[in-house]
Amino acid sequence: MNAYIITIGDEILTGQTLNTNAGFIGERLADIQINIRKASIVGDNEEDILNEFQASWKNNDLVIVTGGLGPTHDDITRQCVVKFFNTELEKNEDVLYDIKALFQKSGREVTKINQNQALIPKIAKVIRNYLGTAPGMWIEKNNKIFIALPGVPFEMTAMMKNYVVPHLEEKLQKNTVIKRSILQTTGIFESALYEKLGDINELLSGSKLAFLPTQQGVRLRITVEEADEESAKNKLSEIEQKIKSKAGRFIFATNDVLLEEVVGRMLKERGLKIALAESCTGGYISHLLTNIPGSSNYFERGIVSYSNAAKVEVLKVNEDTIAEYGAVSLEIARQMAEGAKATSGADIGLSVTGILGPTGAVPGKPVGLVYIGFCDETVCTAKKFTFGEDRIINKQRTAQAALEMVRRSLLGIPYDD
Amino acid sequence: MNAYIITIGDEILTGQTLNTNAGFIGERLADIQINIRKASIVGDNEEDILNEFQASWKNNDLVIVTGGLGPTHDDITRQCVVKFFNTELEKNEDVLYDIKALFQKSGREVTKINQNQALIPKIAKVIRNYLGTAPGMWIEKNNKIFIALPGVPFEMTAMMKNYVVPHLEEKLQKNTVIKRSILQTTGIFESALYEKLGDINELLSGSKLAFLPTQQGVRLRITVEEADEESAKNKLSEIEQKIKSKAGRFIFATNDVLLEEVVGRMLKERGLKIALAESCTGGYISHLLTNIPGSSNYFERGIVSYSNAAKVEVLKVNEDTIAEYGAVSLEIARQMAEGAKATSGADIGLSVTGILGPTGAVPGKPVGLVYIGFCDETVCTAKKFTFGEDRIINKQRTAQAALEMVRRSLLGIPYDD
Repeated sequence: MNAYIITIGDEILTGQTLNTNAGFIGERLADIQINIRKASIVGDNEEDILNEFQASWKNNDLVIVTGGLGPTHDDITRQCVVKFFNTELEKNEDVLYDIKALFQKSGREVTKINQNQALIPKIAKVIRNYLGTAPGMWIEKNNKIFIALPGVPFEMTAMMKNYVVPHLEEKLQKNTVIKRSILQTTGIFESALYEKLGDINELLSGSKLAFLPTQQGVRLRITVEEADEESAKNKLSEIEQKIKSKAGRFIFATNDVLLEEVVGRMLKERGLKIALAESCTGGYISHLLTNIPGSSNYFERGIVSYSNAAKVEVLKVNEDTIAEYGAVSLEIARQMAEGAKATSGADIGLSVTGILGPTGAVPGKPVGLVYIGFCDETVCTAKKFTFGEDRIINKQRTAQAALEMVRRSLLGIPYDD
Repeated sequence: MNAYIITIGDEILTGQTLNTNAGFIGERLADIQINIRKASIVGDNEEDILNEFQASWKNNDLVIVTGGLGPTHDDITRQCVVKFFNTELEKNEDVLYDIKALFQKSGREVTKINQNQALIPKIAKVIRNYLGTAPGMWIEKNNKIFIALPGVPFEMTAMMKNYVVPHLEEKLQKNTVIKRSILQTTGIFESALYEKLGDINELLSGSKLAFLPTQQGVRLRITVEEADEESAKNKLSEIEQKIKSKAGRFIFATNDVLLEEVVGRMLKERGLKIALAESCTGGYISHLLTNIPGSSNYFERGIVSYSNAAKVEVLKVNEDTIAEYGAVSLEIARQMAEGAKATSGADIGLSVTGILGPTGAVPGKPVGLVYIGFCDETVCTAKKFTFGEDRIINKQRTAQAALEMVRRSLLGIPYDD
């Protein structure tokens, strides 16, 4: 099955809005092994849209269009669909119901232009939109499929996941079932991880594994294709288990869970509270932890001790130790973590001190040098890290390493390769 | 001049890499009033690329291609250019020099496949790439222009800015000069800002003004087109002055400067130090301020006082006041700012306390309620804000409002509409 993705909108063409829709759809289609032949963007004008419908429909089995389904005069995708398929509009009661429900929820009156969105080309099946007023359309003709979805990303993604992908999988009438999962690792380089996994072919026995490196770690994407649901599930779980047995301590989550969520959940489950002492990360780790709803259950406080005075006054770090070793040192990281714990009464103290750049390097202490400290009831320790040149990326890598330090400490996993 | 933008790469088509290049190029072309007719993405295969070259070249005056210029076997844009224009490759000494210089800088030997990147289609002028090994190409034929650029964003953007845009402007042979600037506002709604500006046509007298709303404020983009450089400059400055006279206090920066940079610069110039007391933003404001290199000059410390204990112990907030008004209140915001200043010895104390959601609302205190406190040598005050439902967006809006409170206080501008 060859696919063609069309994004409609002047604002995309002129770069005012980033085209995230085409990439999302491309990824989902690739997931179910549909071959994406081409993607295009055209502006909000009828001639260009109709030309694009023609060109895409001619040589492909599947066309997915996003955008231009809103209620105002510059949204013309629906009228182009009517022209292209030589059909007409008719009122759809389900859609009208959805639109009314949506307005009711926010206590507003349904406007006339929104009511008009319930007019659907006769040839189309409706893809209902529970998050917005623009319904999607699914059209089948000459053994080909044409799909139109709204351009608002969170509406489009929900409709892709809940309707389009399952219905396409059905159409593909595969004799096989494809399943996928991602194991997220951190604290290990791609090459080292690759080596740890040993004989990849033996590990996979026909399934697929992609290494997707990011600044925060390597994501392992497993894809299995088996005769039925049950064996796909078993195969996936079998490969996951094999990988975990070889590199389990580096894996912090399955699929799209953030490390700060994992750590937060662990703290909550164990009834532990954490206090932060951040120097170089300037509050970023506290920010990440408190992005998670409900984090007040386990996040006690954070101290952004940028100045030495803050380290001494708030965290009770020893002034003489700063004078002897410098503020960026293993000793100070340990004392900061200890101080965060002791002064707050939290169960865990976590600290970072380092030089993120571009300035601040001194002889023997280059940009990228970071110390992370961790103290709980039983241990009080610190570890040295060496990151890169970029200030913002260094912040991200330091935060990830610090959170990983908490995760491994709580699990009793040593933090080294 | 009609333009067509082509992005080449399987990783873009399947959504593994987000297509930021097409948007960037679209924006730059729109800037110089070139009409972007269409953008497309095709994978790394010769047939699709050649078809795309054909389709784009037929009906447009300008084609810009990015991607597929790397040194490995799956980079085939150059060979497609050779076929499409029926030309051949020849060695280019300038490019070879650039490649060698680049390798020398990092102390590596130039590899054979990188040397081959100095082979350029005879028909093309070279667009030199000082940041990577893949040169760009500029081809003119039949009064049309074909441009190929590497896909690596920072290489492509530098080549667009330094070569492509100026050369296109020359080609356009306009008798006019176009100039642009952006005034960034915050703390005022689009509609209110629009009203403040009064008669837009009179204000602009033929120039253009776009309102670009974001979560953090409204960006005003001014575009003037005049007979020469001098009058364009004058006209731009004249409009900027008029807008400033009507809404000056909402404008925190010209062009792409961040509010935290503006505030940081002001603090540094005045020799002031700031201390933060963050509750609901969880360290995010400290994080933003410390993203700016050199912020240790003015950022003294930050206290993420998530718990009431932290507010009382570290910031010396009055326990009885918390009991009386609650931790999310005007009184506590003021006390937190006062405490941040007093306990740190900084010149300014800035505080936030609020309910960002999704949970935490209580009768009379809905999600989105935020208080921001500010204290310096002369004033100690707090202000109430009402934001929306989304936790992360609320964090961003709160941070922006807090930084704006510092900016306006330092300038003696009242914080209201």
